[in-house]
Amino acid sequence: MRRFVCYRLPRSIMHSFFSSCLQVGLRTFRRLSVISSHVAHFSNSTKMSYPIVQRGSPNTENFRCFFRNENGLAISPFHDIPLHADKENNHFNMVVEIPRWTNAKMEICKEEKLNPIKQDIKKGKLRYVKNCFPHKGYIWNYGALPQTYEDPNHVTPDTGAKGDADPIDVCEIGYKIHPQGTVVAVKPLGVMCLIDEGETDWKVIAIDVTDPLADKMNDVEDIEVHCPGLLRATMEWFKYYKVPDGKPENQFAFDGAAKDRAYTLSVIEDTHEQWKQLISSEEDSPMARTNTCVKTSPYNVSPEDAEKILESSAECGAAADVSQDIHTWHYVIPQN
Amino acid sequence: MRRFVCYRLPRSIMHSFFSSCLQVGLRTFRRLSVISSHVAHFSNSTKMSYPIVQRGSPNTENFRCFFRNENGLAISPFHDIPLHADKENNHFNMVVEIPRWTNAKMEICKEEKLNPIKQDIKKGKLRYVKNCFPHKGYIWNYGALPQTYEDPNHVTPDTGAKGDADPIDVCEIGYKIHPQGTVVAVKPLGVMCLIDEGETDWKVIAIDVTDPLADKMNDVEDIEVHCPGLLRATMEWFKYYKVPDGKPENQFAFDGAAKDRAYTLSVIEDTHEQWKQLISSEEDSPMARTNTCVKTSPYNVSPEDAEKILESSAECGAAADVSQDIHTWHYVIPQN
Repeated sequence: MRRFVCYRLPRSIMHSFFSSCLQVGLRTFRRLSVISSHVAHFSNSTKMSYPIVQRGSPNTENFRCFFRNENGLAISPFHDIPLHADKENNHFNMVVEIPRWTNAKMEICKEEKLNPIKQDIKKGKLRYVKNCFPHKGYIWNYGALPQTYEDPNHVTPDTGAKGDADPIDVCEIGYKIHPQGTVVAVKPLGVMCLIDEGETDWKVIAIDVTDPLADKMNDVEDIEVHCPGLLRATMEWFKYYKVPDGKPENQFAFDGAAKDRAYTLSVIEDTHEQWKQLISSEEDSPMARTNTCVKTSPYNVSPEDAEKILESSAECGAAADVSQDIHTWHYVIPQN
Repeated sequence: MRRFVCYRLPRSIMHSFFSSCLQVGLRTFRRLSVISSHVAHFSNSTKMSYPIVQRGSPNTENFRCFFRNENGLAISPFHDIPLHADKENNHFNMVVEIPRWTNAKMEICKEEKLNPIKQDIKKGKLRYVKNCFPHKGYIWNYGALPQTYEDPNHVTPDTGAKGDADPIDVCEIGYKIHPQGTVVAVKPLGVMCLIDEGETDWKVIAIDVTDPLADKMNDVEDIEVHCPGLLRATMEWFKYYKVPDGKPENQFAFDGAAKDRAYTLSVIEDTHEQWKQLISSEEDSPMARTNTCVKTSPYNVSPEDAEKILESSAECGAAADVSQDIHTWHYVIPQN
């Protein structure tokens, strides 16, 4: 078990800190960091809030969404947010990258220090997933579980395919729309295994623990009871979503079926172990492993150094226009 | 054939007029109206632009979206925008009330003078249509054809049901999202006939004439060729959309089939004739028939009086928050 260490500030100070400046100047930060002498341990069931800091210009290549912890310190959403929101109840933290019904392919950037969310780029252009009729954008809040990793050197026995070098993906099926950068406690219900261009790509299906249906949903079969058609739509969504871009249909392990909750929990724990290996290994990796909370990691940095990384990102700017083209419906899913 | 008369101002004056004040003060208006001595006739193929004026507070009961003509004069979108955008080619003006993928039930208010767009209210609450899985909000840009009316005293021979006292509705299926209040030239392709709580409620299916598919789509059968599944989705959408509110499924004339383009054009012309009757009749009606362009109508008013109506509406205010409840998916459409 790893130990997470974090600086803690009185709430009154943090309130004025955030209300006066969400993007903390280094001078302000240094002043505050003097105060942060109280050091506490993360508990695996602590409810934490993670304010975001948007940098650059929305809808452009330089846009970044950074994270702070509730003490105002810059953190990595990949490495510094604990996987477990409530270990006893198997609730996990999910970092929302893409709110439901939106199209921009936003993701935790594995290669940049502090792993801010940014928009994926394909062939030099900002990437938007196409709307495949009858669907509009992503049909769930989509994101990742922190402190998980699908190791590209690890062959998953059940699929025979290597990992895709990503944190594990989550489709959150609750009724709320969660804004980008929200950290939501979710309850896993099942998992699909996409073989995306030859790589194992797990898609955990989970529900916000505060959703009115969360108490009624305890395993994969409950999804069909309360949301009939959603599992099939999810499978079809992943099967066809790259077809409008000229790519073939995606394939699935297990014939596209979603595995049950127990299986899902074991997949999450496996990918958590692969992350532990990643964050502590001294072997070269294209992954940016800079973190502020994993004190035993060779890549642990001080809060001051983390703040410098955030501040070196692009200044905030006006949002760019987005083409109407992203609203096109593509008729690639067979209708019957 | 009716004659439409309108005030016309030089473009240079109109440019500064709109850039300095979209909501024209009465004093400004009077000064400008002195200049507007040049009187011209509307042509049925003139391309017009219709700036909107938003009043009140968005997402509240007092929000209104008024219209001006390209000369800056307040008009009614129900009575003063010509039905025909290009009579020779059977292109019609559509007033967009509800942009695709939104939920707020916005509509031309038939009962208020100048017929601004406002949000419908049911049981004292602002109305949002429910999302019926797999659909998100309205699945087309939704609106109405101006200068049409489904007379509640007129029994449609083909349906045996009376009109619903509305302008005729349009589902625009092009790829663009048109903001509320946009006036779009559309090409009708077909028409479905909903029997909505016992009333004839035509739903014209049309496409923006500037859409890349518009040239390839000339009749109802072309919809299935280019947008397979959209007609069925449209029928299902209308059949089930009130079910989450506890109402029964809607019924259809013609077993839910969409009639062809020729039939559609005849329905549009019929409803145009019913509007001509409405706008010229001196019989009582709950419809607000105030207009500025139909000079032969008993309800024609001066531009100054129209401006006073607009100015008597609520002052602009901040948008209210909208509940996350509107994002819920309701699983009422049978999946197979």
